[in-house]
Amino acid sequence: MRPLECIFCKKTYPPDPFSPFCTRCQEPLLAASPDTACEIHSGRDHPLEKYIDFLPINKFSPEFSLGEGNTPLLKLNRLKRKFILPDLYAKNEMLNPTGSFKDRGTVLAVQRAVSLGIKKIGTVSTGNMAVSTGAYGARAGLKTLVLVSEDVSDEKLYSAGIHGTFLIKVKGDYGALFYKSLEIGKNKKIYFMNSVDPFRIEGYKVTAFEIFEQFNEKIPTHIFVPVSSGGHIIGLMKAFKELKQNRMIDKFPVFIGIQPEKASPIARAFLKGDVKYKRIKKAESLAQSINNPAPPGGNIVLKMIYELNGRVIHVTDKEISKAQMLLASYEGLFCLPASAASLAGVFRLKSENKLNPSDRIVLILTGSGIKNIKVLNPSEMKITTTSLNKLDFAVSFAVK
Amino acid sequence: MRPLECIFCKKTYPPDPFSPFCTRCQEPLLAASPDTACEIHSGRDHPLEKYIDFLPINKFSPEFSLGEGNTPLLKLNRLKRKFILPDLYAKNEMLNPTGSFKDRGTVLAVQRAVSLGIKKIGTVSTGNMAVSTGAYGARAGLKTLVLVSEDVSDEKLYSAGIHGTFLIKVKGDYGALFYKSLEIGKNKKIYFMNSVDPFRIEGYKVTAFEIFEQFNEKIPTHIFVPVSSGGHIIGLMKAFKELKQNRMIDKFPVFIGIQPEKASPIARAFLKGDVKYKRIKKAESLAQSINNPAPPGGNIVLKMIYELNGRVIHVTDKEISKAQMLLASYEGLFCLPASAASLAGVFRLKSENKLNPSDRIVLILTGSGIKNIKVLNPSEMKITTTSLNKLDFAVSFAVK
Repeated sequence: MRPLECIFCKKTYPPDPFSPFCTRCQEPLLAASPDTACEIHSGRDHPLEKYIDFLPINKFSPEFSLGEGNTPLLKLNRLKRKFILPDLYAKNEMLNPTGSFKDRGTVLAVQRAVSLGIKKIGTVSTGNMAVSTGAYGARAGLKTLVLVSEDVSDEKLYSAGIHGTFLIKVKGDYGALFYKSLEIGKNKKIYFMNSVDPFRIEGYKVTAFEIFEQFNEKIPTHIFVPVSSGGHIIGLMKAFKELKQNRMIDKFPVFIGIQPEKASPIARAFLKGDVKYKRIKKAESLAQSINNPAPPGGNIVLKMIYELNGRVIHVTDKEISKAQMLLASYEGLFCLPASAASLAGVFRLKSENKLNPSDRIVLILTGSGIKNIKVLNPSEMKITTTSLNKLDFAVSFAVK
Repeated sequence: MRPLECIFCKKTYPPDPFSPFCTRCQEPLLAASPDTACEIHSGRDHPLEKYIDFLPINKFSPEFSLGEGNTPLLKLNRLKRKFILPDLYAKNEMLNPTGSFKDRGTVLAVQRAVSLGIKKIGTVSTGNMAVSTGAYGARAGLKTLVLVSEDVSDEKLYSAGIHGTFLIKVKGDYGALFYKSLEIGKNKKIYFMNSVDPFRIEGYKVTAFEIFEQFNEKIPTHIFVPVSSGGHIIGLMKAFKELKQNRMIDKFPVFIGIQPEKASPIARAFLKGDVKYKRIKKAESLAQSINNPAPPGGNIVLKMIYELNGRVIHVTDKEISKAQMLLASYEGLFCLPASAASLAGVFRLKSENKLNPSDRIVLILTGSGIKNIKVLNPSEMKITTTSLNKLDFAVSFAVK
């Protein structure tokens, strides 16, 4: 099994799921890259089998899978034409089993847990990751614990609770809870597969491999990714680096990390050219699922973004909200505000004349909008009421 | 283009999307079956391309697709072992673009609309079909109208409204609205792709073809399908009939249609051996999305079920609720109560000694549970509250 390593001090560690941080730098560890004889096994069905040479598992076990991955890459021609954009594609991660990209990481971390004989898993989350970990924990028959903040909404709580998950609402600082959970996990042998867990990040790589294949082994020029803890974009960038190490590509797409203005510690650091981000006091944007004042993977994101000549930018809540409506009403894609931030980022770069007509842009749509109906604005919708005998008139008026 | 036909009087009609009922029998028309030289084009990516020989379209247009189909078939080993069942599989239709099987029908009906130059589409729905039609209408740039009953919940309304759909709440009899919409549609050239639309039903066939291929061209012994209007199970049965006509199979799986006891007009007719069902006064089960007091496809379901030696049975709300919890907590599958009715049906047949250990059973999981959190019972969940400094103890207590 490949070791874990700190990409800052280069120290390596055994692949222990209970120790995911560098004891020297206090930064998250990543799985060491595979050797340079990786192949893509195109004939195989499941993405974890296809790309297994790149992944830290020896075999794929379908009994712990819920059918994650193989998500569609959709060409967005109506938005392209309307806003005179380059070729625009959406990688639709909403079509994972629990409705978000988190499943890609959870499935790999759970397979890892089972292969090591671990019986108890956990996570710290208030949203997508809670549901994902609950579902995969149930599928594998593991005792699953989710720690949530006290003010979590009932809806989010219940869609994890239905899986038989143990849910603990914790009063107190949510950032502290992240590190406390890892400490408790180590003592009690509960594998906390939190946001920047190295095996979770290995699962996110698979999305990048699929994009590579869906473009017929050509690469997009730009990939726009919403950024919270940093785990997702780290996985995507790591995958492209490994494709290059294996001489499957000769250059990188430009990665554009997007944060909401009100939750943008990494984007702020990038704008100043800093190599370390500063924790912000509060992160309270409309895009709840990426409101992270102290992203644990923030410094790794910065290091890799500089290395790959990408950018981390921020967009306003208003831009995010508009982008969410546009994706739904022009392309039929109802995603979370966090996901729509990616399209808001495209508009931002277009306004700065940073896009060429020949570009091929991919938006990563991270999670389904159905999970947060409350952010929608009904006053912008076309809703009327009538009676059956006046229906004829109402219809004529509506779709004249 | 193949004609439409009435399976009762055998009268044929031109394939007109504005006239989906037999003028003689008042029953829904179905698309005539294709000739017997159909092939499955396994090398193709999208299911509408793979199975196009069986479908009433000449070509598949990816610009109107949202990546529907190719849904996972999951083996449910934990439920099998726990309840000593035959081999049990779930066809996970929750992983369609708007979270339900409706997308399979909508995509085909929308492609049909576009190919005929129709610019306005509509549907009558309060739930899954509203969202599906709204999303695909937006993707294709069509004016889309959804008629809903006055008491529809805001959540369902908004997840259709975000797509720019015209939503009309209609006061009055919901059953009458179904037929009124078709009348208005015919006059105003709005293609109402309602529940038993013949092209919608052709889309549902694709699920059966995928199951056939996922079993390596063997067939399951039983397929359990929740039944509301009847459109879904009609499509599945029609597909297997066409596989047999093309000599790809030599016998049929046993189709088991499931209705909730409080919404079971078709099951009641089946139990009495009747060939026509009687409309019931109210349909008020827990499984809201299949509460249909007057299913327009009910008589076709009965005719085909008798022909294929299937059954239509009913299960109680309590059985449905228990099955929903079991699917989530044993297999990580959080589906709507309507979908869980399929598993409740399996338990029912097992208690009647109607299953053999060598059987291969497929449950069709029709829609995602996230769409209706309100039916869940939090008192059955494991939720506690603590503070950060007592967390250690709370964790020990939870997952001892």
